[in-house]
Amino acid sequence: VSEPNLSAPSLSAQLQPSSAKGSRVQNPIRIALLGFGTVASSVARILIESKPEGLELTHVYSRSLARRKAEWVPSSVTWTDHVDVVLTSPDVDVIVELAGGLDPAGNWVRRALEAGKSVVTANKKLISYHGVELEKLAAAKGGHLKYGAAVAGGIPVIPGLEAGLAGDRIKRIEGILNGTCNFMLSKMEDGAEYANVLAEAQKLGYAEADPTEDVGGFDARAKLSILMRLAMRLTVNPDAIVPHSITEIQAVDFSYARELGCTIRQIARAECTDANVAATVGPMLVGLRSPLAWSRGTENMVVLTGHYGGDVVFSGHGAGGHPTAVAVVSDLLALAHGSRRVVRSSAPTALSAEFEVPHYIRFLVNDKPGIIADITVALASEGINIRAIVQKPGYPQKALAFVMTVEPCKSSALKRALETLNGKDYLIAPPLDLQILE
Amino acid sequence: VSEPNLSAPSLSAQLQPSSAKGSRVQNPIRIALLGFGTVASSVARILIESKPEGLELTHVYSRSLARRKAEWVPSSVTWTDHVDVVLTSPDVDVIVELAGGLDPAGNWVRRALEAGKSVVTANKKLISYHGVELEKLAAAKGGHLKYGAAVAGGIPVIPGLEAGLAGDRIKRIEGILNGTCNFMLSKMEDGAEYANVLAEAQKLGYAEADPTEDVGGFDARAKLSILMRLAMRLTVNPDAIVPHSITEIQAVDFSYARELGCTIRQIARAECTDANVAATVGPMLVGLRSPLAWSRGTENMVVLTGHYGGDVVFSGHGAGGHPTAVAVVSDLLALAHGSRRVVRSSAPTALSAEFEVPHYIRFLVNDKPGIIADITVALASEGINIRAIVQKPGYPQKALAFVMTVEPCKSSALKRALETLNGKDYLIAPPLDLQILE
Repeated sequence: VSEPNLSAPSLSAQLQPSSAKGSRVQNPIRIALLGFGTVASSVARILIESKPEGLELTHVYSRSLARRKAEWVPSSVTWTDHVDVVLTSPDVDVIVELAGGLDPAGNWVRRALEAGKSVVTANKKLISYHGVELEKLAAAKGGHLKYGAAVAGGIPVIPGLEAGLAGDRIKRIEGILNGTCNFMLSKMEDGAEYANVLAEAQKLGYAEADPTEDVGGFDARAKLSILMRLAMRLTVNPDAIVPHSITEIQAVDFSYARELGCTIRQIARAECTDANVAATVGPMLVGLRSPLAWSRGTENMVVLTGHYGGDVVFSGHGAGGHPTAVAVVSDLLALAHGSRRVVRSSAPTALSAEFEVPHYIRFLVNDKPGIIADITVALASEGINIRAIVQKPGYPQKALAFVMTVEPCKSSALKRALETLNGKDYLIAPPLDLQILE
Repeated sequence: VSEPNLSAPSLSAQLQPSSAKGSRVQNPIRIALLGFGTVASSVARILIESKPEGLELTHVYSRSLARRKAEWVPSSVTWTDHVDVVLTSPDVDVIVELAGGLDPAGNWVRRALEAGKSVVTANKKLISYHGVELEKLAAAKGGHLKYGAAVAGGIPVIPGLEAGLAGDRIKRIEGILNGTCNFMLSKMEDGAEYANVLAEAQKLGYAEADPTEDVGGFDARAKLSILMRLAMRLTVNPDAIVPHSITEIQAVDFSYARELGCTIRQIARAECTDANVAATVGPMLVGLRSPLAWSRGTENMVVLTGHYGGDVVFSGHGAGGHPTAVAVVSDLLALAHGSRRVVRSSAPTALSAEFEVPHYIRFLVNDKPGIIADITVALASEGINIRAIVQKPGYPQKALAFVMTVEPCKSSALKRALETLNGKDYLIAPPLDLQILE
C-alpha cells in the first residue's frame, strides 16, 4: 500500500479567511433537480420545508411533467421536460442528478460539469465506474462533484470517512450496503423462505422485478468500490470485484448458522495488507454478537478498521427517500458554505479475492458411507483443518444437508479442494462455501 | 425550534475553483503540538509515520522536556518548554492544543487565534464553555478552529454531523460519551462491584484518582452540550445540564435491569421538540436489543435521530491516544486541503430536564406491610401508571430491594410523587429513579 499522497491547495488558499466571518449568503445557490422520483421529491420537500439558508430550488426536470408536477412546490420553481433547459441554463448553479444508472445520467452529469456547474448525485453506479474521471472534469472546469448519498444513503459514511478518518489508514471495510438483501436475509433468519421474501420485497418496492442487481451483489460491489477509493485510496473497477449471489442461501443454512452462533448477511468486504488487496461481495456468516448481525430490515451498516483508530461502526437507513435526501441536502449545504472535500489521490491496484478466513461449507448429499472421509481427504490435500462437522437430525437421507467449518485458510486453497469433489455422485448440489467473519 | 438559518459565504466564494485541480501543496502547514502526552505523541507518530502530504510537524511544546523528548521525532522538530515560542512564532501555522482543561489551555488557544493562527483541539471542556466565542475570534482573525476530537475521540461524529447530517433537523441525541463510565458499568453488568471496578479503572488509567468528572457526568455533559450546538443548533451552557452520578448504581440494579430485559449505561440525552428542549446525563436503563447496550468496555456510541433521516448510529473507540489522534490529524488535513466547516449559527435556549419516558424506581426498604400501597398512592396522586412491580426473592427483610417501573410520565411529576415519600420510616435510602430508554 502506498504512502498517503495528498492533493492540496497552496498555503494561501488553505488559510484564507473563514467562511464563518458572519457573511450571510447574498445569492443562494440555484438548484435544479434531474428527476422527481422518491428521493428527488424528498429533496424538494426538505428544501421547501426547512429552507436551509443558501439553497434555492429553482428548476425541476421530469420526463412525466403532467403526472409529477407537485402542488406543494412553490410556483417560483420552473418545471420542464427538456433536460437541456436546466443543463444549459445560466440560472442554475448546481445540478442534482437522481435519475440513476449510467445512461443518460452520465451524459447529463458530464454536460453539467463541462458547463462549469457543480453536481450532487446519489448515483453509485456512475461514481463507481466514472468517479475519478468526473472528479477530474469537475476540477478542470471549476465545479464540484459531491456524492455523499451514493453509499449507505442517509448514513454519513462518506463524509465521516473524508472528514473524520482521513488521518487514518483504513485496512478493512465490512459493510451491509444493500438494504434489499438485508431485508430478505433478516426475514429468512426469522424463518421465511427465499421465494416468499423476494415476493414481499418486490411488493414493498424494495426489490425490482428483476432482482439480480441487488441479490447478485452488483449494487453492493459498486458501493464497495467507492468506499475502497475513499478509504483505501485504491481505484478499483467494480467489475473486478467477484460477487456471490444470495440466491444459494436456504433455510437450512440459517438453521446451521444459528447452531454455530451466527446468522447470514450479504457483506461487502475489502482488505488491504502489504501483500494483497482483496475484495468480494456475498452472503457470509457473521457472529450473533457482531455489530453486523444487529442490522436488520433495510438498514445498512459499515465497519471501517483503521491502522490507528481501530473499528468505527456507522449504521442507519441506507436508502429511502428522506434519508437519502438528507445526504443530498447536506452535500448542497457543503457547496453553499464553500466547504471543500479533502480530495485524496487514489492509485489503481490489482485486486484478488484471496482472504484468509474460516469458512462454512454446506453439503447437500444423497447419503452413503464414506462421504465425510472423501471430503476430509480433499480438504487435507490443501492443508485445510476442519473446525467442526455439524449434522442436524431430521433431514431425509436422499437430500441430506450437513455442514463443515474449517479453520482460516486461503480462499483459493479451499476452492481447489472443493473442485476435487466435482462430479462426485453423492453431491446433489455443488457445496456452498461462505466466509465466516470473526 | 427555529428554522435553519445558515451562515454562508458569497456566491463567488462558494463556487470558486476546486482545490482538487491537481495543485499539490508547495508549503505544507507547519504544526506545533502543545503538550506531549498520550494523544499528542500519537499525533506526532502518525505525522511522522504516515507523512500525510501538506502536514509538517515543526514544534513541540512540553513542560517536561528532559523527560519527554522522543528519539523517534526527527531532529528538524524544535522542542521547547516556553509556550510563547510557539504561540508567537511566525514559523507556526497551526497550534494543536492537547493539554486539556480551561486554564492555561484556553489562554493559549485565544492567543494563537489572536495571532491569526488556526487551532485544532480535543478540549471538550474549553469548546463546551467557550466554543462560540472562540469560533467568532477565529473568524475575525482569519484562522480556523477545529475540534473533531472533542467528542467521541476517534469516532467521526462531529465531522459526520457537520458534513453529512447538516441537511436534517436532529431532534434527539442519545450517547455513551464517557468511556470510563461505560467500562465500569459493563464490568458491573458482568457481576463486579462498583468499588472494585473503580479501582481497576484507576489502575488501567481510565479513571482519575478523583473520578468525579467521569462518574458524576460532568465530562459527558460537556460533550453533550457540544453535540447539541452542532446537531440542534442550540447554544447550551454545560452547567445547565443536570448530571446524575453512576455511584448510586448497585449490583441489585443490574439484577433487576436484566429481569426487565435491560442493562444500565451512562447516557447523555437531549431532546428537542416544538415545546421543550431537555437534556440530562446519568445512568439509564437501555433494552438489551438497543444499540446502546452493545457498547461495552471503553467504547463510545452516539445515536442521532433526525426529523427526516431517522436514527443514525456511530460507534467505536471514543478515547485513547491513537483513535483521538486520528481525529486530530483528520482536522489538520481538512485545514491543509482548504476544507471549510459548514458553520451553522446556533441560538441560546432555555433548558429543562423534563422528559416523558418510562422510569425504573428501585426502593430499598425495611419491609413491613403497606409499603406498596403507600407508594402506589403517591404515584397515583400524580396520575402515574405502574407498569410492573418486581421483587426478586433472597433479599433480607431489613434491607429489601424491589423495583417498580412506570409508564411514560413527566420527570417532574415523578419527582413530586417520590418527594411525598420523603421521611417515610421504611425507606433505608432515597428511591433510585432511572429513565428507561425504549
